[in-house]
Amino acid sequence: MSAIITLTTDFGTRDAYVAEMKGVMLEIAAAAGRPVHLVDVTHEVERHDVTEAALALDAAAPHFPPGTVHLAVVDPGVGTDRRELVVQTERAVFVGPDNGVFTPFLDGSTAWRAWELRAPEYRLPSVSRTFHGRDIFSPVAAHLAGGVDLGKLGPALDPAGLERLEVPQPSIGETRIRATVLYIDRFGNVQLNVRADQLAQVGIEPGARVEVEAGFERYFASAARTFADARIGDIVLYEDAYANIALAINRGDAARMFSVRVGDELRLTSA
Amino acid sequence: MSAIITLTTDFGTRDAYVAEMKGVMLEIAAAAGRPVHLVDVTHEVERHDVTEAALALDAAAPHFPPGTVHLAVVDPGVGTDRRELVVQTERAVFVGPDNGVFTPFLDGSTAWRAWELRAPEYRLPSVSRTFHGRDIFSPVAAHLAGGVDLGKLGPALDPAGLERLEVPQPSIGETRIRATVLYIDRFGNVQLNVRADQLAQVGIEPGARVEVEAGFERYFASAARTFADARIGDIVLYEDAYANIALAINRGDAARMFSVRVGDELRLTSA
Amino acid sequence: MSAIITLTTDFGTRDAYVAEMKGVMLEIAAAAGRPVHLVDVTHEVERHDVTEAALALDAAAPHFPPGTVHLAVVDPGVGTDRRELVVQTERAVFVGPDNGVFTPFLDGSTAWRAWELRAPEYRLPSVSRTFHGRDIFSPVAAHLAGGVDLGKLGPALDPAGLERLEVPQPSIGETRIRATVLYIDRFGNVQLNVRADQLAQVGIEPGARVEVEAGFERYFASAARTFADARIGDIVLYEDAYANIALAINRGDAARMFSVRVGDELRLTSA
Repeated sequence: MSAIITLTTDFGTRDAYVAEMKGVMLEIAAAAGRPVHLVDVTHEVERHDVTEAALALDAAAPHFPPGTVHLAVVDPGVGTDRRELVVQTERAVFVGPDNGVFTPFLDGSTAWRAWELRAPEYRLPSVSRTFHGRDIFSPVAAHLAGGVDLGKLGPALDPAGLERLEVPQPSIGETRIRATVLYIDRFGNVQLNVRADQLAQVGIEPGARVEVEAGFERYFASAARTFADARIGDIVLYEDAYANIALAINRGDAARMFSVRVGDELRLTSA
Repeated sequence: MSAIITLTTDFGTRDAYVAEMKGVMLEIAAAAGRPVHLVDVTHEVERHDVTEAALALDAAAPHFPPGTVHLAVVDPGVGTDRRELVVQTERAVFVGPDNGVFTPFLDGSTAWRAWELRAPEYRLPSVSRTFHGRDIFSPVAAHLAGGVDLGKLGPALDPAGLERLEVPQPSIGETRIRATVLYIDRFGNVQLNVRADQLAQVGIEPGARVEVEAGFERYFASAARTFADARIGDIVLYEDAYANIALAINRGDAARMFSVRVGDELRLTSA
Repeated sequence: MSAIITLTTDFGTRDAYVAEMKGVMLEIAAAAGRPVHLVDVTHEVERHDVTEAALALDAAAPHFPPGTVHLAVVDPGVGTDRRELVVQTERAVFVGPDNGVFTPFLDGSTAWRAWELRAPEYRLPSVSRTFHGRDIFSPVAAHLAGGVDLGKLGPALDPAGLERLEVPQPSIGETRIRATVLYIDRFGNVQLNVRADQLAQVGIEPGARVEVEAGFERYFASAARTFADARIGDIVLYEDAYANIALAINRGDAARMFSVRVGDELRLTSA
């Protein structure tokens, strides 16, 4: 079977950047005689948005086979002294800059380890100042897919010292939750940093009517198990495919309708 | 050789949804020891537009090798009681919701068969209420690519009972055709539900001048064999790569120029 | 190992055109029993923009393994008498229309050769008038990946007679360079047709202050080795990952800020 490498970047698909990275990986794989299977997670991360890249990886990585190499290049600090690193968890290997993009994978296990990418023999012979995705991270990912030992890539890093993103936590009161918008998808569904059990803590169970406040706006949603419980046009709070609560309009675009953006605060009250 | 699975969705490429489906399929393929080759047909289907997905599949599927598995997830009814199904034709296997997306493949042969996807052992252990593309359809596609017998997936379905889209038919008069816009491509070329032999029925042969009426607008086009017969800027009716008649402006954008949308009616008259 | 075929088109990713080409190639590969690995360079080339396609290929192709087949279908002349061709360089094979798209690969070596695609046995049985990407170029690419001898595809062409794009050259004075904008990437970085040694000729070294004139606008940039030398919001001229000079705003969008477009002239003066 081919080794699998996934790619998560903010390069878009119009420029040739992603193809250059793939060419580099395929050439190393060809030289090593071990085929690789390249899979795009997304290249449409908002430019320089490390949090969005982390969320995409967090959604995708758990579904790939054990041993998959995940390459993440959202790298506003390229050319500065931010470190390049590889992180090994129980299930997978992650390659990218030390800027917090691997935050979702840095906890919950005692088995993960990390190394700094320093060994010159696993980079391209000439490293540009602005495109480490091609010149450093892609070669490392391809060598890892080919079976190179992690310890050869550079010195081990103290895991506690790696950059992490601060993920906002909901504020849970007696009858109200203050939630933060984590992500808005293509359908305009608004993913919140809230789980179903936290909704239940403030008395919001499936079927309940919920007051939603955002800025000076206020409207009512139904807590639903799924869209099937709602009519077209209904405003619903439902448990999405990641066990988070999301705000949606059945067959509509909730984010556009309510002018909601990532990072906004929504207040949810049992009504 | 790898088994081939194609993907047709309305998920876009920014969100991680498609990658999650690919991860699921690759993990099942890895466990089965049989490699799969994943090919995107499109993920840019207009959200919930089952007809557009059916047209994309109709264009792409005939070109893939026999035995290809085509996965289609445009699924506005996810979570309702719409059925999940697999359709086997003489050439290929189709997996997706029973909402009409496979209409182009449901006729023209006595050899096709269908089954409802009910067997729990071919789904993910936990099935979400909103993402059957990942939790039901992708696992089935991967198991089919791995050689699972179709009959094991669930009960056989009566083909006559499957959902079908109504494809609009042209109205052909003595000298005039009322056509409907099926699709508009990236180049602004306007694909009509008309074939060349139908144009000929109303006296429009290559080289003829044609009056085109759309709403209150009226203009003249040339019936051409190809763009090569036309000068830059000419309005042409030509036979496209699917043997349908399309309206185009040579090196221009006909849909934008004439404000044409999918579903609009155009009246074509020999002039 | 699989043979590699890359794809560069202006078809976009919403329509099924690219998938049709991939299906054709996979079917030929399956029939030949030799797997192929298909890699997208880009499908977002501006429609009919042969120069943009040539630049994308120029960036990507050098990174792929020797023997890679590069398929380029930006083909405004499809259906006219423009020729179809294959070009063999020391490193790779290129398949596409004779419209200049392979300009970057036509010089610098005495080893390249070209043939016109005439042999009917390496096309689809039925060739449409408007989609040679699917009906001629893709089958040829797949047969080449399968090992078909180049000379069998048609008559050899005199290399001197192939179409080439005119690439604008900078005008270098005593203290000033007149540069042309070649490309603008997703980040709004403005790639110029100037190399670092040419900047040095007019006295612009890293660290220098540079006056930039564009139309009636005038502003100052710093010549920098990389973004790391600049603060957020600084205007910099830096050597990009292709050894070209580019104009950028650190973490900003220079093209939007200065309303710069491809083909614009910028005048750079040591200040």
